[in-house]
Order: sequence, then C-alpha cells, then structure tokens
Amino acid sequence: MLKAVVFDGNVDCKEVPEPSRPGETVLSVQRAGICGTDLAIASGDYRVKTPLILGHELYGTVKKAPADRKDLLGKRAATEITVACGECYYCRAGMKSHCANGAALGIHRDGGFAEFVSTPADNIHLVPDAITDEEAVFIEPLAACVQLVKVGQIASGSTCAVVGPGRMGLLVLQLLKQTSPRLLVTLGRPGRKLEMARKMGVPAFEVGETDVALKMTDGAGFDNVVETTGTPGGLEQALRLVKPRGTLHLKSTHGLPVQLDVTKVVVDEIRVQGSRCGPFEEAIGLLAEGKVEVREMITDRFPLEKCGEAFGRARSSTSIKTIFEI
Amino acid sequence: MLKAVVFDGNVDCKEVPEPSRPGETVLSVQRAGICGTDLAIASGDYRVKTPLILGHELYGTVKKAPADRKDLLGKRAATEITVACGECYYCRAGMKSHCANGAALGIHRDGGFAEFVSTPADNIHLVPDAITDEEAVFIEPLAACVQLVKVGQIASGSTCAVVGPGRMGLLVLQLLKQTSPRLLVTLGRPGRKLEMARKMGVPAFEVGETDVALKMTDGAGFDNVVETTGTPGGLEQALRLVKPRGTLHLKSTHGLPVQLDVTKVVVDEIRVQGSRCGPFEEAIGLLAEGKVEVREMITDRFPLEKCGEAFGRARSSTSIKTIFEI
Repeated sequence: MLKAVVFDGNVDCKEVPEPSRPGETVLSVQRAGICGTDLAIASGDYRVKTPLILGHELYGTVKKAPADRKDLLGKRAATEITVACGECYYCRAGMKSHCANGAALGIHRDGGFAEFVSTPADNIHLVPDAITDEEAVFIEPLAACVQLVKVGQIASGSTCAVVGPGRMGLLVLQLLKQTSPRLLVTLGRPGRKLEMARKMGVPAFEVGETDVALKMTDGAGFDNVVETTGTPGGLEQALRLVKPRGTLHLKSTHGLPVQLDVTKVVVDEIRVQGSRCGPFEEAIGLLAEGKVEVREMITDRFPLEKCGEAFGRARSSTSIKTIFEI
Repeated sequence: MLKAVVFDGNVDCKEVPEPSRPGETVLSVQRAGICGTDLAIASGDYRVKTPLILGHELYGTVKKAPADRKDLLGKRAATEITVACGECYYCRAGMKSHCANGAALGIHRDGGFAEFVSTPADNIHLVPDAITDEEAVFIEPLAACVQLVKVGQIASGSTCAVVGPGRMGLLVLQLLKQTSPRLLVTLGRPGRKLEMARKMGVPAFEVGETDVALKMTDGAGFDNVVETTGTPGGLEQALRLVKPRGTLHLKSTHGLPVQLDVTKVVVDEIRVQGSRCGPFEEAIGLLAEGKVEVREMITDRFPLEKCGEAFGRARSSTSIKTIFEI
C-alpha cells in the first residue's frame, strides 16, 4: 500500500494499492506541483472518471524498470504526462500528446500525488544534477510554456502582454523576455504575483488598468496576449488587449464554458491559439542552464497528508506554486 | 432626395438627402446584396449608431468624381467598405481595413442600399465587362472569402469542412475546391443550400450527421473547419469537427456572445482564426475568369421599396442570396 491524493468528489489522502502496470516503470515520487488543472478537477469543473489519483507535475527516482530499461533504475527523473498508444494517426504523425487512445497521468489515469506512480519508460526524462528536486517540478509546466511560444509563433520584437502572472504566467514571462520583445507587460490582481513580475523587471498593471497598458502600445494593442488566469473571466480581459491581426494565446484549462466575442475575433482578424504539452528536453535545458528561475515561485510546501490544506493554499492569491514533498 | 433603406430600430425605405462628402466619389448603385451583418444589424444584435443607411455589398456606376479622378465617371464599379484615414498606425502598416479612425460603409457610415452612395475614389475598383451587374454584387463577399483562405493559411492537400453552406459558405466551398483539398465536405440544415453544395460535387451532410462526416477523416477530424452559419450555435458544431492542431476559421459576425469550450481549444491545441475584408482585385479576377460561379446563388430580387420583404427572405432557409435591384 502507498499514500496518494485521491479525487472521488473530494480530495483526500488515502492508502491505495501499489501501481502495477506490466512493462512500465515506477517512479518513487519526491516532489509534485499543484497546477490549475488539478484545481479544476478538484472543484468538479474539469470532469474526470473517479476515483483518480491526481498530479502530473512530477519529480522522483526510478524504482522499477522493465527488463530492457534497467539503466533507468535509481535515476532522477521527470515524466511526460500522455501515455500514448504509438499506433494511431496522431502517434504516427508525431503528435503523441494528441494520441487518440492516450491517457494523461492525473487526468485519465492515476497520477503522481502519491508515493509511487507508474509511467512508461519512453515518457521518462532524466534530470541532471544542475536541477534541484524542487526545480524539477517545473519541468512539465515549463515545457508547456515553451510549447506556447512555439505553437503561437511568438516572434522577437513583438509587443506582448501576459494576463495572469501566476504559476504559469511567471514562467511565460521569463520565456517571453528571451524572445527580445519590443514591449512586455503583465496584468493581474494586486499582490504577491504582480510583485514578483515587477521583480523580474516586467511592468505590471492591475486588471483595471487595461487602458494604461494599452497606452504603452499607442493604443494599437498587443501583438501577443497570453491568457493564463485559469479563470473564465480572463478571456474577455485578454481579448481587449489584442491588436487587430494579433494573437490571443490560451493556456487556461478550467473546464468551464467561456463567452467569446466572436464578432470581434472576425472583425479584428484575431488568432486565438491553444497549446498544451511541450518538449521536456528544452525545459530541462532552460532550468539546468539557469535561464529560467523558479525557486522563488515556490511559496508553499505540504506533505500528501495535508492535501486539503495544500489545495486550499494553491487556490489562494497569496500562493504562487504549492508543491507536495513526498 | 433619394430612396434608401434606413435602419433606425426598424428597416424602412425612406427619402433621404443626397450624400455630400467633399472629395469623394458618388456611385449610382445598381445592385446590392444583403449579408449576415446587415441581418444582425437589423435584428439589433450588431450594435450601430442610428439612423444608418445599410448595405456594403455594392455595384454601380460612378456618377460624381473629384477633379483629379474624372476618369472614373460613368465607369462600372464596386467599392471597398472601409473608409480609412491613411495616417494611423494600421494604415501606415498596410492594414487599411483595421484603420483606427476607419468607418465601414453600411456599418459606421451610410451604405449602399440606396440610389446613391458616397465613397472615396481610392476605394473604387472598376468592374470589367466579363462580370455582369448581378455577379458584381459578390465581389465584396468573395474578397472576404479569399482573405479567409489567405489569413487562415489553408494549404493544399488538407481536409476541410464548411459548416453552413449559405451565401458565404458556398463561396468558401468554391475557393477551397481550388486549393486541391484531400477532402472537402459541408454540413448544414437540409434544403436548398445543401442541395446547391451537392450540385457543386461537395459531399453535404445534415448537422446531425457530424459523426458521419468525421468518419470520412477516419475519426481524426478536419485540418480546417470554416464556420459560416451566421448563428451563435455554429461555433460549437464546428469545434466538434476540428482535429487537434487544426484550425477553426470564423466568419460569422452576428454580434452575439458565444460559448466557447476554451479547455478543448487548449488541450487540442486548436487555432481559432478570424478574418474580415479581402483583396477586391483577386475577387474580380476570379469572377471575370469564371472560376467562381455565383449566378445560381441569387434566389431573390427586390426593389428598395420592398426592403422589409427582402430582409425577411434573406433570413429564410430557402433563400441563398437576396439582392436589391435599384
């Protein structure tokens, strides 16, 4: 038996059987981060089959490995979240994260807010010593942010705004700084997150100051606006900032329907771009080389047993990143 | 005085003063088409300042011209709809249709459901003899469809679905055929429009047959889905058809908020792309060379005096294109 954070209408720490999936590896999970999707599942907005062990931002060491991958044993590792079939149209097209038969850890199959998690050896990425245990929790979300910049084709010299400088937005801001933007600002609720953005040297406005932010573009609007609020209200705020022929990058997966002003999207010829999982090796490189700073983002640490308290903190505007220490 | 279709809460044919805008040309309007935006304005969903003469799909002859453009007098002509300032950020960036001080005929300033309309000489495009008066009404909407294919970067060899094969959708279908798609289908309500799509050789499904259409892509979904229903419900139907990393092209400007499943857009990494006005010369070329067939799309013809009846017909599922003969 092992301890795990199980969602079954409520979020509770329970004793469950050890994972047993033939041919896969088992990670002994050391650290795991709570993200917006976890919160959306816990609130019931993002529908999943229950009972489910939550968690997909994971770091640990390899405890078990299949016969042909014994080299992984004992290694420090992070894991991609989509368990893909390797045979469907999407897998053959190199779009493993969209596998037609795929299951994501912590969403469609048991995840890693647990002492142990099962994951295919192909999903394992080794974590170099230059990355601490805590930093390694950010590999998965940072990879997703790398994907946002790639899929969204954010070019250097553009004007960029990030709406919602939280656990995801602060990573996006760091990546956008590296694209040499002509202008980069963020908008959010007053408090700790906005302060951290300012510490990064990014002009930070309160949400009500949209017009002030727009003035910095001479009223033209931003080429790229990233919506990382994790709330349904974020889309409308973000859309106000996008200039005609600009791009609105979506990153919130709160599971709720959102009202979109389709007519504005058409008249202003706006692109609304979604993006999801990204390249782990690039994220590992960025963290290992110190090009993205995450340590100060960790505001709260809990053991699995205090999962209720941990989820409460993760929802708070004074928390940036809440992690489990396992 | 002249006759014009004026919107002032209701749509009525009235006697109004002749247009008088120094430096502009005046078109004697011969034909004008009713489009979805006109209907949305008339229903009150698309908000405009009133009173307003509606109409922006126009064909006529040049009756008055400024001193330096007397060459235009008497010529057969269509007009672009955005009257741009030529000086703002967008105009200087070559994005005239997004002019910060711009006004669109029939939306922000008086349009062409009238005997005469004023429009800048720079917005005039001459109509060659190969295009009939009736066909010329389609220059503006066809240009918009050309823009959709361009802005949406619809590549040859892709799989495409058009949701809503109406006055706009049937034009889009013809353009998409020319991109050599691997698969091209349409979905709509049963009736005349779907029949016309079938006559074009396009597999046409009723909206309830989404799963049948999806089967033609082996369940993968379509690379490009064009939403031209002109109704708020169209977006959800269209989104169901888009494959991961595919594009949903928006063309409805009904003025109403629409519920969007943002989480699906993110998880499936979908691009939602709006597009608006397009290149008139390309549309003129396509019509002149007979590469797009529009004559059979005109189902209803009315004089301005019967504007109430005309708008009623334009809303009917048995009408494709309703035009005014002036």
